[in-house]
This record gives sequence, structure tokens and C-alpha cells, in this order.
Amino acid sequence: MKKRVAIVGATGYAGGELAAILSRHPSATIVEASSSGGATGAPFASLHASLRGVDGPAVTTFSLDSTIADEPDVAFLATPNELSAEIVPHLLTNGIRVIDLSGAYRLTDPAAYSERYGFTHPAPELLSTAVYGLTEHCNGELPGARLVANPGCYPTSILLALQPLRPFLPDNATIVCDAKSGVSGAGKRADVDYSFTELSGNFKAYGIDSHRHAPEIESRLAHPGADIIFVPHLLPVPRGILSTLYVDLALGTTADEIATAFADAYDDAPFVDVLPHGETPSLKNVVGTPRCEIGFTVLRGGGRLVVVSVIDNLLKGAASQAVQNFNKLFGFDEKEGLA
Amino acid sequence: MKKRVAIVGATGYAGGELAAILSRHPSATIVEASSSGGATGAPFASLHASLRGVDGPAVTTFSLDSTIADEPDVAFLATPNELSAEIVPHLLTNGIRVIDLSGAYRLTDPAAYSERYGFTHPAPELLSTAVYGLTEHCNGELPGARLVANPGCYPTSILLALQPLRPFLPDNATIVCDAKSGVSGAGKRADVDYSFTELSGNFKAYGIDSHRHAPEIESRLAHPGADIIFVPHLLPVPRGILSTLYVDLALGTTADEIATAFADAYDDAPFVDVLPHGETPSLKNVVGTPRCEIGFTVLRGGGRLVVVSVIDNLLKGAASQAVQNFNKLFGFDEKEGLA
Amino acid sequence: MKKRVAIVGATGYAGGELAAILSRHPSATIVEASSSGGATGAPFASLHASLRGVDGPAVTTFSLDSTIADEPDVAFLATPNELSAEIVPHLLTNGIRVIDLSGAYRLTDPAAYSERYGFTHPAPELLSTAVYGLTEHCNGELPGARLVANPGCYPTSILLALQPLRPFLPDNATIVCDAKSGVSGAGKRADVDYSFTELSGNFKAYGIDSHRHAPEIESRLAHPGADIIFVPHLLPVPRGILSTLYVDLALGTTADEIATAFADAYDDAPFVDVLPHGETPSLKNVVGTPRCEIGFTVLRGGGRLVVVSVIDNLLKGAASQAVQNFNKLFGFDEKEGLA
Amino acid sequence: MKKRVAIVGATGYAGGELAAILSRHPSATIVEASSSGGATGAPFASLHASLRGVDGPAVTTFSLDSTIADEPDVAFLATPNELSAEIVPHLLTNGIRVIDLSGAYRLTDPAAYSERYGFTHPAPELLSTAVYGLTEHCNGELPGARLVANPGCYPTSILLALQPLRPFLPDNATIVCDAKSGVSGAGKRADVDYSFTELSGNFKAYGIDSHRHAPEIESRLAHPGADIIFVPHLLPVPRGILSTLYVDLALGTTADEIATAFADAYDDAPFVDVLPHGETPSLKNVVGTPRCEIGFTVLRGGGRLVVVSVIDNLLKGAASQAVQNFNKLFGFDEKEGLA
Repeated sequence: MKKRVAIVGATGYAGGELAAILSRHPSATIVEASSSGGATGAPFASLHASLRGVDGPAVTTFSLDSTIADEPDVAFLATPNELSAEIVPHLLTNGIRVIDLSGAYRLTDPAAYSERYGFTHPAPELLSTAVYGLTEHCNGELPGARLVANPGCYPTSILLALQPLRPFLPDNATIVCDAKSGVSGAGKRADVDYSFTELSGNFKAYGIDSHRHAPEIESRLAHPGADIIFVPHLLPVPRGILSTLYVDLALGTTADEIATAFADAYDDAPFVDVLPHGETPSLKNVVGTPRCEIGFTVLRGGGRLVVVSVIDNLLKGAASQAVQNFNKLFGFDEKEGLA
Repeated sequence: MKKRVAIVGATGYAGGELAAILSRHPSATIVEASSSGGATGAPFASLHASLRGVDGPAVTTFSLDSTIADEPDVAFLATPNELSAEIVPHLLTNGIRVIDLSGAYRLTDPAAYSERYGFTHPAPELLSTAVYGLTEHCNGELPGARLVANPGCYPTSILLALQPLRPFLPDNATIVCDAKSGVSGAGKRADVDYSFTELSGNFKAYGIDSHRHAPEIESRLAHPGADIIFVPHLLPVPRGILSTLYVDLALGTTADEIATAFADAYDDAPFVDVLPHGETPSLKNVVGTPRCEIGFTVLRGGGRLVVVSVIDNLLKGAASQAVQNFNKLFGFDEKEGLA
Repeated sequence: MKKRVAIVGATGYAGGELAAILSRHPSATIVEASSSGGATGAPFASLHASLRGVDGPAVTTFSLDSTIADEPDVAFLATPNELSAEIVPHLLTNGIRVIDLSGAYRLTDPAAYSERYGFTHPAPELLSTAVYGLTEHCNGELPGARLVANPGCYPTSILLALQPLRPFLPDNATIVCDAKSGVSGAGKRADVDYSFTELSGNFKAYGIDSHRHAPEIESRLAHPGADIIFVPHLLPVPRGILSTLYVDLALGTTADEIATAFADAYDDAPFVDVLPHGETPSLKNVVGTPRCEIGFTVLRGGGRLVVVSVIDNLLKGAASQAVQNFNKLFGFDEKEGLA
Repeated sequence: MKKRVAIVGATGYAGGELAAILSRHPSATIVEASSSGGATGAPFASLHASLRGVDGPAVTTFSLDSTIADEPDVAFLATPNELSAEIVPHLLTNGIRVIDLSGAYRLTDPAAYSERYGFTHPAPELLSTAVYGLTEHCNGELPGARLVANPGCYPTSILLALQPLRPFLPDNATIVCDAKSGVSGAGKRADVDYSFTELSGNFKAYGIDSHRHAPEIESRLAHPGADIIFVPHLLPVPRGILSTLYVDLALGTTADEIATAFADAYDDAPFVDVLPHGETPSLKNVVGTPRCEIGFTVLRGGGRLVVVSVIDNLLKGAASQAVQNFNKLFGFDEKEGLA
């Protein structure tokens, strides 16, 4: 039986990717494509270049009542953080499951919302009930979940690389996460700072010690005493994230042990590929795909590991991971709609 | 004696280039750097990357009274068209010469402003008094001029290539101008359509049959019966214009005759270089320079010429040409501040 | 019944796209992926980023004997012009059909090979037997064809726009074709002139009056007395061609007549889309797709038309058009493997 | 008195920048511009876009005898490492001072040449006599030096940031150097891997644990027990290096102490600018300039510092630093030819 899906925030970059994937998904029927920004009446095909000639619901202006009236089985929210935070309780109350691509339900500590997101969380009691949807590490929590907090793009690239390494991390390990993202990570922005003229040929770090994704990475890695330093950079490419991770290793850890740990974690994962020791992935390997690629090198002398991880920020870092979660939620094959 | 100069519209791209050039000009003292957009109080050095550590007046919010009070000898206007149109008469009345980088005084026909610029010109009587500042073709009109209409970026690249060819154009010649501009030509824009994500890897034509520069090119070439077709394109580079011109030639015109005509026009011009017949210039030859480069090829069979012209849209297409005009206006060497 | 296909020249950009498409084609079995450049033994999946994890024959060094021994029903040649010219007769003699993506069988006049391609054609008698595979204009010649000359990338973008306009072209019409191609059009090149450092931020015209695609466009449009001027440019994007065409029209031709002609030509064509009068396509609309998009504007005053046409040079300009031709050759649905 | 200078390796990127700077240097006369690659006879102006119309010696094919015969006071070598290694002793013997932009005399340990550069050093006895030309940290060694080893581009960006921090580094400090370079850092390369098509939209790490600049950074920082991890990345921009450094600090170190240390180091340095605490520089601030810009942030909780350093790899990372060294060598003002 096909599931009825609503895409809220369909006119943004992640929303457009969701529309493209879900329109081809054999087990999904899109019953709503809405936007709070107001592109009311725009044809469904306008949401993504690959949709030319494809039928689907015209874009509507989002209202909670309309979405509830559309009776979706699940709503994908590609909406601003505060809007997601506010509407999720109502959707759940009305029996609509939610896969939230915003940051509104990713953190476990309500106080962190005031500090990093700039608003008081309206439904702190729901934070502990959300399943953090890093698909490959959900440990069976997805089937039947009511609320999935889809991971941030940077955390996805970083946590996929780090989770399998936890057994090799000493207490108080230092982990430097030097991450570089393509410009679409900033969303559809009418902002001189994100204009072609300003960014072509340019490169910079930003958000040092203040980025919203830092507490997400820390709380979800949850390694005792780990000191995680996260510095994002703005890369002059439209899509893709490459994270370079510098990881303290327990003494004596070998490249073989790490290869085995990665193999155990991902041999059955259709969308995570780990390269042989010493090889490094290129961003282009994954742009336009739902895959993550990971390369790792134990440095001479041991005790330290460099891991390089690449994803497409709009796919594995947003829309395709959301659809992996959708598939697991309803018991479809993880690859459905994505292969 | 140094001339006192005001830069109005100093926070835009062309204004920043003006600030950079004029701050190093041995015969100019910048007495005002103002903006209608309101970056009040920003240090002068913030106007251009090359000004780090350079002193100059802090940015003020433009007001006509303040500019008049600053008693400049000349005001460079890098302002929106309507603002230029409105303030020029007042500046002139107060004895301030004007070099206007906007389009407000480039056209000779007031009616064209309603049609292409969307406003009724407030001072149509001044249009015929403005000197059209295509420096190399001003024929002695610049010394002592009160109002200089600095040419548009596309018209500069096109007219420098076409003016020397007029003797070889048949009546009713067809001239196709296929022009491509880097994104800074659109100004500092907070607009999704000019964002890095949208434009990287992209390319498109725009303004077919409706661009403001078309009547400027037509009226300034002023060849009887010429049919000029102008199509601009948005090139995914930050700076530079390349125009490819397809020109009908009077029968029997030879490459040597054309080379001679170009040599006559530009051998003494410090900022226009013409390549030997059959060679074509690259955009990078001129980006960051005040120069125009022109290549030309008479096609097999004769009767038709392809000319390729390149400039930096912010320099020869705006700021450096304005300074050439400033030099000529006051009798300084044409290269002063630009070599 | 699946057809056995060989891909000769599989390690180039077009060959890689062929490998990607054909590996997913329900009616094709790839029996050979070979290269004259010698990547012998490389896994099939190395041919294209999207093939990760996909099985197929390892890359072999091309030899005519091996290809014949592999008994393909059809060989796709993405090989240098001279190699194609030489091996096609042998493949045909051995009952192997050929879809040649090189230029070796596109021209009808053998003399043009000496002039533009720099070699004497070894099999001039075959030139008239090749079907010129501009799929939408093959008029039923493809089913059963033995040799298909797949059109060049520039000619594809230009001829798709011009063929439906032939009824409106006056005799001796002038047609200016100002074409801009992404860098992959030059192939995989170990050449400083095609390096990132040289081309980033750059743009230039090349091959004025000497490009190989000019006689292909002229002979295939075959409009009596037409004067076709073709100037290609190198665009700083990896993929895509945008051609801007300036076309003389018979007096009195209306936009509606042209819209009707385009509709007649392409309403049933799954991969050519014509925009409403006055709209212009962007390159990004088609990059990564097998589609061509065409926009047209009749200029004020009539008598002249501007047409803008966009394709992906490696897909509609090479590999996907080749697969359209494969589908028609063997009676499969035109969209098979491409939708 | 003007100094006679030879530029060996003038046709590469760094050589071209040297030609551009030295041709405008009031105290230098270029007596030779040679190349081992053989562009013999090319005009001097062909060496750099900004040299159009500038006179200078035509390019010759390098021979040691010719260079000696040209009697330069100093030879700038922008040559391959092995060639530099071989010719330096001969130049010195003939009384010609050398500023070597290659890596041939940067390392102090001859064994490192076999390991990282792949050749046995032909003049190991000279290694200890070379002045390592990180201009701002040469401590008076430059005046009168005979051989200057001009620092590598990555080491320049990293060491300028680290040297003033030495008093705050604990023993055994870990320093992660995540560095990103524009493509010109790889030189003029006829190599598919450096082609526009491959690198546009791409990004990758390379040389993990094996790059030649790692031992240079380690030996020149020379902090006891420091554990320096250096990972370079290839950035899709033509020019510029941004290095992000993660530095262990002695407990209790404050942002003010660091600001003071940087001020002490660079307040009198014309080409190094340090931003206020918490600000981060953009690559574009320095591209096309001889400057380095440094930003630093002490992380919450203390004990760790993030430093971001930007330079133009061809200028401060090569040619302009070489000219700073030239100025100091002969007692000219450090800014001469560079301001």
C-alpha cells in the first residue's frame, strides 16, 4: 500500500530534492507540496529540474489545517527551525508521523536551543522521544517511530565516520572536525554574502565555536570526555560536504582493526562505502548520489587517525537520508526510490 | 593642483573600484565617499580589498546638501539611474562637475527612458549637453566638459570594436552583438537568482530585445540604417565582458584595411590593444586591468567580419574609464592613476 | 531479446556516459568495454561515478580482432576520428552494426576530411550510406541502419533548433550560430590550456572559420544559399552547450507560425522541449539530462529570430542521443534506458 | 645602484609573477628570463598578463654557462627541485647569489630529500648554510646572505601563524594543520587530474602523511616534541591558500596574550595583518596581494586555539616573498616593488 506523504517546505533546495525522489518512489503518493514562503500555485514540476513533465500537486501556501486535512501518513518538514518546532506537536496529535529535516528536534538538551538556535523550544518534552535518524546507526528504532529528527548535513558526514571508531577512542580523545560545505548548505539565500560574485574564487571558515551543529555532533557521538572541535568552511562549489577528521586513537590500534570496524558497520549499508586504508575520496564521487564515502589513514607512528568523509549535503545530508528513514519507518526496502 | 573628488555610491562594486583607483591617483583628493544604501561610518578601507591600511574619508550617507558642502571639483556618481537623473542638475548648478557612471544621461532620446528605464526623465534638456565618455572617441569634447555620461559596460566593449569599422559598414548593415558578462555586472545583489548556488555551472541569455544598453549602442554608433541585434548573456565568472560581433562588411574590404583602421584609431590609445588578424583575445587578458583587447577575423569569402572584444566590466566598463575621463577633463595625462 | 553491445573508447567522457546508461538499459548487455588508451584491467565501475558497485566487463585494450570475437550486435565507438574511420568498414563486414560517436562518418564530402580533420578518409564510399543520427530528424531511416553517424555536440544543439525553421528561411538566409560549450567538450585532456588554473574565470572564442563542426552543420541543414556563421566559445563550466542563433526570417513570419512548426516537430519527441515564445532556457535545466530545451523570440519589427538552445554535450550531444539511436535501430521504445 | 637579476624558470606561474614584480622594481634590472622547458624566443611580455607592452629580455633556454655569462647579482630560481639542487653550487661558486623558490635547500636533513623528494641531495653541505627565507622571522640573517631558500607555500601560511605562538605551546603540543590550496599551487600541469573538467565542483585531500612540506614545517617550527599533523587539500579556485590550524595552548593562555604576541611579531611587518580576536579572514582578502592575513579564536574553555591564515600562494607563498628577501638581501626597503 502506498503511503500518503506531505512535503512542507517544498520550494527550498532540500524540499526540491525530496519532491524529485518521492515523485519516483514506488510506495509514496505526494498529497501536498507546500511552502511558507508563498509560491502558491506554482506547478509541481517547478520544484526540481528533473521533474520537467512530471505530474504532482501544485504548490500551496502552508497552513497546519490544510496539511491535517490532506491526511498524509507522514509529513516531511523542510522548514525553518522555529516553524518545525511549533507544528510538530500538532501533526503528531493528529496522527501524522513526522520526518523533520530542520534542527528543531535534533538536540536533546532544551537549553541548547536558546543558546544556539535563538528561541525557547516550545515542546521540550518531545526532544527525548524523537528518533535521531542517522539511518545506519538507528539500531532498530525507526520502524514505527512517530517523530524522526533527520540529522544535520555536517553531523551526518562526521558521525558516519566517527560512530564505528568509538571502541578505539581513548577517554578524553580530541577529535578535530574540519568540515567544508558547498554553498547550497546555506539554503536559497537572497544575500550578497552568498552571491556568485562574492564567493567565486573565495573560501573561508565561519561559525568557529558557535555553530549549531557542534552540540548535535557532541551529544550524538556521546563519547565520554571527548573534546570535539568543529570548524565549518564555505567551499566554492554548489553541492557537497567533505569533512577531514583528526582522531586520537587508543595506543596500538591498527589499520586492520579500523578497517574491520568499518566493515562491520557498513558492509550491509547500501549507501556507505569505505575505501581501503590510505585512499581518500573526492567530493565528486558522491555529488548527486545518496552515498557517503569514507577514507582513513592511520598516521605513521600510530596513535592518530585521519578520516575523510564525503556526502552530498542535499541528499545523504538531507533528502535521501530522510527517504531512507521513510523506508525504514514503514518497512520498505532501504534502497526504495534511491537506487 | 589636486582636484577634490566625491564618490557617490562608493559601496557598490564600481564605487569600490573608483575608491581604489582614486586613492592612488596623484592628482585627486577624495573628499567624500557616500552611499544611499547606508553603510554610514564604515572605514574608507572597507570599500575595496586593496585599500587595507589606506586612509580616506569614512563612508557617509549621501545627501545632496552634504555633497555640495564638501565642495568637490567633480562628483563621480556610481548610483542608481533615477538618483543620478535627479541629482545631476543640482550638482551642476552648484558648479560641481559630474562623471555619471549610471545610465541616466547616456541616451539622447528622453522617451527611451520611459520605455527602457521605467521612469520619466526629470531633466531631458541636459541629455544633449552630456558628453558621452567613450574616452577614445570623445574627439576633444572632454576638456572642460561639465557632465560626462560614462558609457555602459556592454556598450563600451561593443562600441570600441565598432567605431573604427564605420567606413566599412554598408548602409543597412546587420550587426549581431552576442555579449557575455560576468556576474558583477549585475551589481551587489541580494537575490537568489544571482546566488552562487544558482549560477555556478550555469549560463543563460537574458533581456533579448529589451535590454537598456541596446538603444545606447544604436544611438552612439549612429550608422544610418544599421540593424543592431544585441543579446547579453550571464557568464559564470565574477568579472569581465566578452562580446562577439558579427559585422556585415562592404564588399571587397580586406583584413589589411581593417587592421589599418584599428591602428589609426588606437595606436596612440594606451588602453586599447588590437591583435593581429585572426587572433582572438581571452577574457583573462584584461580582467583586473583598465584595458580593452580586440581581435578580428574576416571570414572566408569576405563580406563578413567577426570581432571579439574583451574588457573588465568594472574597470574599462566603469571605473577606469571614468578616471580616463577625469584625466582628460582636467588635462592630466590619460594614464594617470591607471598604469 | 537483449542486444549485445560493445563500447569502444569507454574510458573517455562520452564512453563513460555510455557505460552508465547502457549498464541500466533493460535491453542491452555490455559485452566489451575497451580503450585504445590502455586502462587495461580497470574495473567496469571505474568508468563512471554512478557505476560504483555495478558489475560489467573489465576494461580491455581495444583490438579489432577481440571486438569481432566478442560478437556484439552493435559497437558504440567513442574513439578518435581516425580510428573510427579505419575500423568501421571491418566491423560492418563482420556483421556488427556501428553507432559512431566520432566525426568520421558525419560529413558527406570526403574532401572535407582532408581539410578539417587532417586525414584522407579511408572509406569514402561509406559516407553516403551512414545515417546521420539526429534522432528527431531521421525520418524512419534508423530501423535497420548498419552505420549511424552520431551528430557532433554543437551540430546537435544547432540543428535541433534550425531544422523546424527551414520553411521560414528565405533563400540566402544568414544564420549566425554563437555557441558556447563546457570544457568536457574537449575530452579528457592532459593539456595546460584546459587546466583549471587557466580556465577558471576565463572565457574565449576559438576556431573561428575553421571548426570541424561548421561543414557538418552546413551540409546537414542543407538550406539553399544559407550563409551559416559558426563561432564556438569555451565556457568555464564542466558540462553543457548553449547556442544562440540569429536567424533571418521570411517577411511576415509570426511567432505563432514558428511555435506551430516547433510543436509539429517536437510534440511527440520525448527529449526536446520548446518554451513559450519569449522565454529563454538556462544551461542547468538540461545538464545531467538527455533533453534539449529551445527558446525563441521574434525580434521587434519582425524579419529576425533569436533562438537559444541548450543540451548536455555528453548526453544529448553524445551518449544519450546514441542510445536513442540504438533504441530506434532495434525497435525499442525511444526512451528505454533514458527516462 | 640597480641590481642585475636573472629569473630562471620564468615560464611557470611563480616565474611569471617574479617577472611582473621585478619588471616594476625600481632597484632591479632583469638581465635574463630563462626556462628549462624551452619557450625560447618568446617575448618577455608573454610571461604575465600584466606585462603587455612591457619591455624585457626575451625568454631563453636555460644553460648554466649562459646564466653565469649574464653576470647577474642574484638568480631567482623558480625551477624544478632537482635542477635547483644541482645548479646552486655552481652559481654560488661564480659569485652569484641565489634566491631559490624550489624546495631544494629548504630542509636541513639531507636524508629527507631521498625520502620525500625522491633524489639524493647533490650538495648536502650547503643545506646548513642556506637562510630559510620566511622574511618576517629571518632575524637579521638576510643582509648579505648568499643562498636563500624561499619557503614553500603551505609552510609560509602555516609558519607565519605559528611562530609567534611558540611561547604558548606546551611541550608535546599537538598542532593540526588543515590546509587548502588553489590549483595553481600544483604548477602549470598538463595533467587530466588538474583539468577544469575534473576539478570544477570538486574538492579533495591528498598527500596525507607524505607531503614534502611536512618536514619543512616541522623542522622550521622546531618546537620540542610538537606533534604536527599536516593535511593539504585541493581547492577549486585558481589561487590562494587558507590554512586552519588547531593548536594546543598552555593552560591559562588568554586571547589578549596571543593578540600581544602577534602584535609584537607583526606590527612592523608591512605584509602580515592580524585580525582582532574572533574574526576570520577570507581567501579573497589576499589573492593578488603580497599580504598574509591571520585570524585567531581561543576556544571556549581555553586550552585550544584555532588560527586561520590566508595568503596568495604565488605571491606571499612564492614570488612576493622572494622579492621581500631580495630587498632585505641588498638593503632596499622591504616594500620596494611590492606596495
